[in-house]
Amino acid sequence: MTVTSELRRDLRQLTDRICADYPDAYWQEVDAARRYPEEFVDALTGTGCLGALVPEEFGGLGLGLGDASVILEGINANGGNAGPVHAQLYTMGSLLRHGTEEQKRRYLPSIASGELRLQAFGVTEPTAGTDTTSIRTTAERTADGYVINGQKVFISRVQHSDLMLLLARTTPREQAAKKSEGMSLFLIDLREAEGVGLRPIRTMVNHETNEVFFDNVRVPADSLIGEEGRGFRYVLDGMNAERILIASECIGDGRWFVERASNYARQREVFGRPIGQNQGVQFPIARAHVNVEAADLMRWRACDLFDAGEPCGAEANMAKLLAADASWEAGNAALQTHGGYGFAAEYDIERKFRETRLYQVAPISTNLILAHIGQHVLKMPRSF
Amino acid sequence: MTVTSELRRDLRQLTDRICADYPDAYWQEVDAARRYPEEFVDALTGTGCLGALVPEEFGGLGLGLGDASVILEGINANGGNAGPVHAQLYTMGSLLRHGTEEQKRRYLPSIASGELRLQAFGVTEPTAGTDTTSIRTTAERTADGYVINGQKVFISRVQHSDLMLLLARTTPREQAAKKSEGMSLFLIDLREAEGVGLRPIRTMVNHETNEVFFDNVRVPADSLIGEEGRGFRYVLDGMNAERILIASECIGDGRWFVERASNYARQREVFGRPIGQNQGVQFPIARAHVNVEAADLMRWRACDLFDAGEPCGAEANMAKLLAADASWEAGNAALQTHGGYGFAAEYDIERKFRETRLYQVAPISTNLILAHIGQHVLKMPRSF
Amino acid sequence: MTVTSELRRDLRQLTDRICADYPDAYWQEVDAARRYPEEFVDALTGTGCLGALVPEEFGGLGLGLGDASVILEGINANGGNAGPVHAQLYTMGSLLRHGTEEQKRRYLPSIASGELRLQAFGVTEPTAGTDTTSIRTTAERTADGYVINGQKVFISRVQHSDLMLLLARTTPREQAAKKSEGMSLFLIDLREAEGVGLRPIRTMVNHETNEVFFDNVRVPADSLIGEEGRGFRYVLDGMNAERILIASECIGDGRWFVERASNYARQREVFGRPIGQNQGVQFPIARAHVNVEAADLMRWRACDLFDAGEPCGAEANMAKLLAADASWEAGNAALQTHGGYGFAAEYDIERKFRETRLYQVAPISTNLILAHIGQHVLKMPRSF
Amino acid sequence: MTVTSELRRDLRQLTDRICADYPDAYWQEVDAARRYPEEFVDALTGTGCLGALVPEEFGGLGLGLGDASVILEGINANGGNAGPVHAQLYTMGSLLRHGTEEQKRRYLPSIASGELRLQAFGVTEPTAGTDTTSIRTTAERTADGYVINGQKVFISRVQHSDLMLLLARTTPREQAAKKSEGMSLFLIDLREAEGVGLRPIRTMVNHETNEVFFDNVRVPADSLIGEEGRGFRYVLDGMNAERILIASECIGDGRWFVERASNYARQREVFGRPIGQNQGVQFPIARAHVNVEAADLMRWRACDLFDAGEPCGAEANMAKLLAADASWEAGNAALQTHGGYGFAAEYDIERKFRETRLYQVAPISTNLILAHIGQHVLKMPRSF
Repeated sequence: MTVTSELRRDLRQLTDRICADYPDAYWQEVDAARRYPEEFVDALTGTGCLGALVPEEFGGLGLGLGDASVILEGINANGGNAGPVHAQLYTMGSLLRHGTEEQKRRYLPSIASGELRLQAFGVTEPTAGTDTTSIRTTAERTADGYVINGQKVFISRVQHSDLMLLLARTTPREQAAKKSEGMSLFLIDLREAEGVGLRPIRTMVNHETNEVFFDNVRVPADSLIGEEGRGFRYVLDGMNAERILIASECIGDGRWFVERASNYARQREVFGRPIGQNQGVQFPIARAHVNVEAADLMRWRACDLFDAGEPCGAEANMAKLLAADASWEAGNAALQTHGGYGFAAEYDIERKFRETRLYQVAPISTNLILAHIGQHVLKMPRSF
Repeated sequence: MTVTSELRRDLRQLTDRICADYPDAYWQEVDAARRYPEEFVDALTGTGCLGALVPEEFGGLGLGLGDASVILEGINANGGNAGPVHAQLYTMGSLLRHGTEEQKRRYLPSIASGELRLQAFGVTEPTAGTDTTSIRTTAERTADGYVINGQKVFISRVQHSDLMLLLARTTPREQAAKKSEGMSLFLIDLREAEGVGLRPIRTMVNHETNEVFFDNVRVPADSLIGEEGRGFRYVLDGMNAERILIASECIGDGRWFVERASNYARQREVFGRPIGQNQGVQFPIARAHVNVEAADLMRWRACDLFDAGEPCGAEANMAKLLAADASWEAGNAALQTHGGYGFAAEYDIERKFRETRLYQVAPISTNLILAHIGQHVLKMPRSF
Repeated sequence: MTVTSELRRDLRQLTDRICADYPDAYWQEVDAARRYPEEFVDALTGTGCLGALVPEEFGGLGLGLGDASVILEGINANGGNAGPVHAQLYTMGSLLRHGTEEQKRRYLPSIASGELRLQAFGVTEPTAGTDTTSIRTTAERTADGYVINGQKVFISRVQHSDLMLLLARTTPREQAAKKSEGMSLFLIDLREAEGVGLRPIRTMVNHETNEVFFDNVRVPADSLIGEEGRGFRYVLDGMNAERILIASECIGDGRWFVERASNYARQREVFGRPIGQNQGVQFPIARAHVNVEAADLMRWRACDLFDAGEPCGAEANMAKLLAADASWEAGNAALQTHGGYGFAAEYDIERKFRETRLYQVAPISTNLILAHIGQHVLKMPRSF
Repeated sequence: MTVTSELRRDLRQLTDRICADYPDAYWQEVDAARRYPEEFVDALTGTGCLGALVPEEFGGLGLGLGDASVILEGINANGGNAGPVHAQLYTMGSLLRHGTEEQKRRYLPSIASGELRLQAFGVTEPTAGTDTTSIRTTAERTADGYVINGQKVFISRVQHSDLMLLLARTTPREQAAKKSEGMSLFLIDLREAEGVGLRPIRTMVNHETNEVFFDNVRVPADSLIGEEGRGFRYVLDGMNAERILIASECIGDGRWFVERASNYARQREVFGRPIGQNQGVQFPIARAHVNVEAADLMRWRACDLFDAGEPCGAEANMAKLLAADASWEAGNAALQTHGGYGFAAEYDIERKFRETRLYQVAPISTNLILAHIGQHVLKMPRSF
């Protein structure tokens, strides 16, 4: 066993141990109450895992993306939902890559320790959708900082976040040399910012998500991350990491569904025999398993490239596509295997089923990944 | 326009008119509160539609199944959920077909008028699943009636029902000539019965559904519907009607999804053009539409056969399979088309998406329909 | 039984009787030799069926499209291939609808009797594909007729056809008021025309198909069908009929596959039991059956509308889509059920499998049907 | 670059170089004539590649399975068909693993050099199918050897093979301790054996395949490979290698289809723009690409385990399932992309389409792999 695999085995065991204290009933209750899994996040924070990707010099564990992905997969494979953890793990990446030394010193150690939560990432807008360069939120330069106006949507966990990364136009689209320029990234301290309004959006899953309104929100000049006008590029820089991490969560989901489904199929007897003896039950579970395994290999390929600093756009996208499809397929197989019980909250299938469905559209839809592969890998024309 | 089609057009207009008073916001609220759509059911009751299938001599409208299916399709096509209506429409069928003249006179007029609600059908048990002949609930003959013991599961709308049809063993399976014999059907008056316990089951959809426990529940002799020992046969008699009605609801769902999705695809602009211009968005909606239309033709074929008193087992099953698959396909297309907004409760897609998923397993799973077709239509061997 | 259904039953019985003389071995031989099924076509010609759609006044049977579709379905359901019959049945439609009285009197009776074969329809060109208005073949007006130059591709059965319908530009696209104008339809007598060259195209199926080259081919003025410049419209007029007939052939194929597959699944024993007992074998066959039945209902709906002279574009397209998909699904299920034997020519599965695959792209591809439905039925934007 | 990857790059380049001399037209001709690709096999034989898996001491290259898989993938990725090569590469494995030193010395060097062809593997029988233990071909012990009687089916390339491995019962099934015992493996020298009859089977693909009849075929005692009665075990031993190699060929096919399809989609213009701009064309190609890539990762995982001598049953089966599905998906996408041209032999799509379809059933069907995964990996009950 190599050091890497030992480390990852340990990380998984640690994750499993924490998760053991937060069994199905915990997640059911959190889901029914539509509340933030405060206790679970606290417990995990205590392990230092939320700072996995923060370098050691800033108080984190300084681990690789592959290592971090083990934690996220583990949470979902134990029946939980890694959403909040996922956000805290990687959102600080923009700060880390593009922040000044001072910004990093000020924030990263507290983020690593869990004292400060940075898990809100304000990019999407109602009228822009996936066409990020169309955002309309503006940050206008003032004497001592910026004043922000506009509106974001589907910004998750703002209510449980101290900080928010925000993408806003500092140059109007018409005046920018290219439409992908003229946007800047800001680190907003939500505890201090005035003029930030929230409207929670009730959704099918228990991801606290919100519309966020910025009404003349004044932020200091040192809120800017990196150079003015290059914010979109910074956001893109983090996308591969996000897709790989989401893929890992999907794989955790997929494994959980396959395990629950095959257990149930083995034990549940109808017509005098286990239902798993029926190929109509068994084969969809088996096929989902195969697809989860294939997605997992792609996820590791993407992780290895990412951690080696090599280009991994195609692999990150393929990992996301394969993993999200496999977890959804596994979710359907598990729901179908459980029959009516699959719909009962106490069996957890329905909760995970709702949750994993999200990854068909977030953080990038299946269609956009296919367009990416078609255009950038297979060199067919842009289709939209 | 024939009389039939005029009647059906009128029924649909009536349904649309009622539904107009119960818009999306109503169903969102009912769903969020997980409550019974009392007001809507009352309004529909006022039209007499709940007695559509009750003969005129017993105070109903004396309509055909095809006519009734128009109402159910209409409710779902308007964004509502016909679950409660569906149950009240057809559950009385066993009473109608197999009850004594006296039983019919006592109950049917009040059921038709909505005064009495018979919408609970107690068949499924935890250890029997779809293998109905394995039920363990017993009704033992006493001097003046029966005493019932046992447990049912997934019995919907018991809390809003005055009456319940119940299938129980009056002869132990081992002593019955065939395992499909020895079961009897009872009409239980829940307002009077003592010893009936309920445990609501929280599910992915807002169908109030329950575990029901019978602890020495004494019912009078005239609770028995038809002959003792022939209850399973009576239940089977009603299955085709149920499948056809469910198919109609799925078609309503499918139409709703296709309409919402194509509207959204037409209006929503991303990257400077309506998203419906993308074949990756448009084609899945178009395909779902085609499948809804095909399912609808099978539903009408099944209705026509049913109303003509001809065998329609294959057609009823095929209609259910096609319609449930088409509505699920349409639901996925609609959710995917709406992106993140599809998950927001206020767009209704997520609610209908959860609801229509149920029809992949209830009242009969896709697998069992395929087994029925494979074995009984195509004469392949029994596979389970 | 109505007159219609009696007639159709008789037509089917007639078809079955003819087909009985041309069993599997015949079609195997024809396929292996890649030759035209001369004997079969002759036999069917003898019945008058090839003139089914020709009005009685011109010596045909004067039947409806639904009636004719019974013959085509029957041929394919008996294991044959209705390609040549199909072409002879409907290609004369343009002549019938748009020809002069004289043209009709000159050709239709001989076509109806089978003396003259009109089964070549020259529309597609290498550089135009499905974008018919881009064709480059030209017909230039001369003193006494037209001179034709250009090239067509995938023109089937030219070698066994006496006549060919040809679409050519009489006005250059640039000069036409609309790109859909300026094309004209000609009836070419191949026995007389000089300058027509052929290059047979070897394909996966035994449809004799060809590249056709026109090198200063002079045709008399009365070759023109209808008005000059309106040829594209005339071609469109026949498309619904073609799609409905193709749907019928697919349904015949689908039925044949389902029957062969279920027979084999019933009889073939592996591991000590019929393979049809395996749900992995049985369910795909059952599902294909259901889809064939659904497609068939849509085909009848389209036929009824067509024969009533009502608009049926959506229904004809949906019938084609559903039927082609169902037959392909059935073909795959049958091939898979037969294992290695499915690939052996003597089992016929592989031949029909190759043949039915064609209907995913011809005479219109699945994608273009979805685009039609998306754009014209669901009112989403044009996507190409 | 490691030694392994350098070696594999060289093997691929060598393969590409050979294949360059046998372009599409060659394979078209071979296919149309349904003949053995003698010249191609000779050319490859000249490189020593056919002895890739034969140890160096017996005159082979002594390479690993992963290395050999590069050659097979390369052949198919260049548009050829690796069938004959594949058989020569691995069929000798049973001899290598279980033969005596003398048998190995006698045969392996000539096999490695291509002087002797061992590419016929006689296992399947008409009445046994995939249930190998039901074979009825018998080998009865005589004074100086064995006498063989029985019948095999789908035995490929016998006409171009000098040697055949044959599985026959030496102990009747009823007398064997277990049904998997009592079968023995023989190496038959077809040049000498008398009483071997052949009936070629015409199939959808150009794999020369045959029924083989054994009528009192006398073989010397030293034809026996390994111990009497353990032949089934020896056959099983080679199955993982076969599945992995077939997976590699499917991946070659998949890559070829994706490349051809995306090239065509880029160049072919209809409606004034490249058809690849249509998502309905582009996305299926992109998705096929993703699935080919995922299958490839599983193939490498299986190769690595195999070459390391570790258990790889699950991985070999998953690689075969994923690769065969991906190549079939890619084949369908390529055929659909090419429209009518996909069916024309000169475009090669139809040939490869027919060929790659075979891998859905051979050497093991999709269903049996799912059953393997369901039962042996996920521990659900045996389903057949």
